Amino acid sequence: MNFKIFNSDSKSGARTGELKLNNIKVKTPFFMPVCTNGTPKAIDIKTLDLIGYEVIVCNAYHLFLRPGSDYIKNSFGSLHRFSGWSKGILTDSGGFQIWSLGSLVKIEPEGVLIKSHIDGSLNRITPEKSIKIQEDLGSDISMIFDDCPKPDSEYSILLESINRTREWAEKCKKSKKSNNLMFGIVQGGIHNDLRKMSANHMIDLDFDGYAIGGLGLGEGPDKTYEICENLNSILPKDKPRYSMGIGKPEDILESVARGVDIFDCVVPTRNARNGTVFTFNGKINIKNAENSSKDEPLDVQCECKTCKNYSIGYIKHLYSCREISAIQLMTECNLNFYHKLIDNIRFSIDNGTFMEYKKFFLERYLNE
Amino acid sequence: MNFKIFNSDSKSGARTGELKLNNIKVKTPFFMPVCTNGTPKAIDIKTLDLIGYEVIVCNAYHLFLRPGSDYIKNSFGSLHRFSGWSKGILTDSGGFQIWSLGSLVKIEPEGVLIKSHIDGSLNRITPEKSIKIQEDLGSDISMIFDDCPKPDSEYSILLESINRTREWAEKCKKSKKSNNLMFGIVQGGIHNDLRKMSANHMIDLDFDGYAIGGLGLGEGPDKTYEICENLNSILPKDKPRYSMGIGKPEDILESVARGVDIFDCVVPTRNARNGTVFTFNGKINIKNAENSSKDEPLDVQCECKTCKNYSIGYIKHLYSCREISAIQLMTECNLNFYHKLIDNIRFSIDNGTFMEYKKFFLERYLNE
Repeated sequence: MNFKIFNSDSKSGARTGELKLNNIKVKTPFFMPVCTNGTPKAIDIKTLDLIGYEVIVCNAYHLFLRPGSDYIKNSFGSLHRFSGWSKGILTDSGGFQIWSLGSLVKIEPEGVLIKSHIDGSLNRITPEKSIKIQEDLGSDISMIFDDCPKPDSEYSILLESINRTREWAEKCKKSKKSNNLMFGIVQGGIHNDLRKMSANHMIDLDFDGYAIGGLGLGEGPDKTYEICENLNSILPKDKPRYSMGIGKPEDILESVARGVDIFDCVVPTRNARNGTVFTFNGKINIKNAENSSKDEPLDVQCECKTCKNYSIGYIKHLYSCREISAIQLMTECNLNFYHKLIDNIRFSIDNGTFMEYKKFFLERYLNE
Repeated sequence: MNFKIFNSDSKSGARTGELKLNNIKVKTPFFMPVCTNGTPKAIDIKTLDLIGYEVIVCNAYHLFLRPGSDYIKNSFGSLHRFSGWSKGILTDSGGFQIWSLGSLVKIEPEGVLIKSHIDGSLNRITPEKSIKIQEDLGSDISMIFDDCPKPDSEYSILLESINRTREWAEKCKKSKKSNNLMFGIVQGGIHNDLRKMSANHMIDLDFDGYAIGGLGLGEGPDKTYEICENLNSILPKDKPRYSMGIGKPEDILESVARGVDIFDCVVPTRNARNGTVFTFNGKINIKNAENSSKDEPLDVQCECKTCKNYSIGYIKHLYSCREISAIQLMTECNLNFYHKLIDNIRFSIDNGTFMEYKKFFLERYLNE
């Protein structure tokens, strides 16, 4: 067993556990910083290690296009070696990116024909090819290649998509050669019956973990939580669950309460670039004029490099001057916040106070 | 005395010494990373401290315009406090920037009328005002407000400019209220007679140090070194000399050989953004295709974070993806290189082997 549960919350679906990867054991729930191209945005990958992160999510599709997954394998041996990141790597297969980047040219029974968003070249990605790419990269967890239409697509399209995802998932599993973990992906848009069908498809194929795909794409938080809640009773308790692309701090807490163990999201890095900083007392928009004269850290209780060394007023000045250091400092603070939040969540589950912590956090965080 | 000399090289004008600032004593020669807006480009100011830098150069004119020097004084007390940099700060008065940014509207006897490059507002900068700005910022070394025409301007314009610089220098000195050091600036373009006149103007006014301004602006290295060489015999030996905006590694070595103690230059940070990395074996252009497969650090002997953690191939990939981390990693490596170079220079002067080190360095550095 690669996954074991330590504690389950009596008042919610929250649980703590441990997931065994190739080189490390990682405590769950955990959050993975997004490293699409093999680096986080605005800071270097070593900084993630210093903050305390243990697993990152990279994008197999992006790395296949540039610099090339075969290239990484042949010249460097693995993505770990290439990026200098020796801890855990989960690779997203790229199903979602193919749709969201508008790269899709044609869906074929065997896979998809895509046009590179970088150089316009045509490439065919099949489930087998996607797993080959991920195994060339040598990630610790690979994701099946899924069909990921918009969540508000017509019912018939979503039904077709979960059947296609099942076929592709089976092919992915069959083509697996490495000892790495492989996670299935539940699709089905906003329809609970389709989600249930898709979950059962994946469970039948018996994966090392189950991801919920296609959420956080405009369906609204209530729907996100409802789908999560329903899947909580279907997905096997003894396997880790990963909510892809989720989310905002409140989404993470609500998802943990519904049994989710693994998260990734661009929010901490992307919002830093837009001038938003997360703190336990609420979000700060660095652009606000009132921040100019503040001679205090972003979060007085935060222990990150940014908060230990710099004031809000200084960071606002750097942001106004369009200095890269502004983005870097806010990114580091946001990733520290996410790390600390998930740390607090684990701590509270182990202590039997998760629902109290959730309430305490949301009151402070949302009221400002 | 704020400056004392430890060792003078018998075969050149090179010397080591120590300059006393408000809070620290700094070994000379030293190099100051450029922090125009109160931050280095692409990395945060704390990283300069970790590399080992002790003095930075900030731009009084830029900080006057944004966020405002009075504002820094009133809300934060000083630029040290505002930026989180507790070691030495030299502020450039901004004479050069006013010309180079095209902000100059009119030269008046009392000073200049300028139009902000940020918001188009009109401001009058006088010598007295420039010193007030620098004292509001609380820098350790302030520079006189100088008239800085292009070095290839007509002789009559350059003559007028050194006379104006003398007048303004006198006013700067008279208006000084703090205990901080103040450096004069020698102008005179490419004409040795004007340079000599300007040097004597400054010496008559008795400053804590003497800067050579208006060099490295297209006059060519031979002319730069010639002017430097001639000034070496005029400027008082017991005061520090600062070659403003110089320079490339070879320029620093040649200038040290001609008695210069202090340097600043945008080259290590700007060239990083353009993909150029400095190493003791020569420059690396990260964009070169051959770098893609290199699984080795930029400089195998370098001990910076970049070289300890990342390969050339990975950094090239990040640069190709336009990731900020590429710029950040190359900037950090370049600033480490400059720090190590000046360290080696000081070491060799103290050991009586400066000219041998200069030859050894240039052979390795220029031959690749």
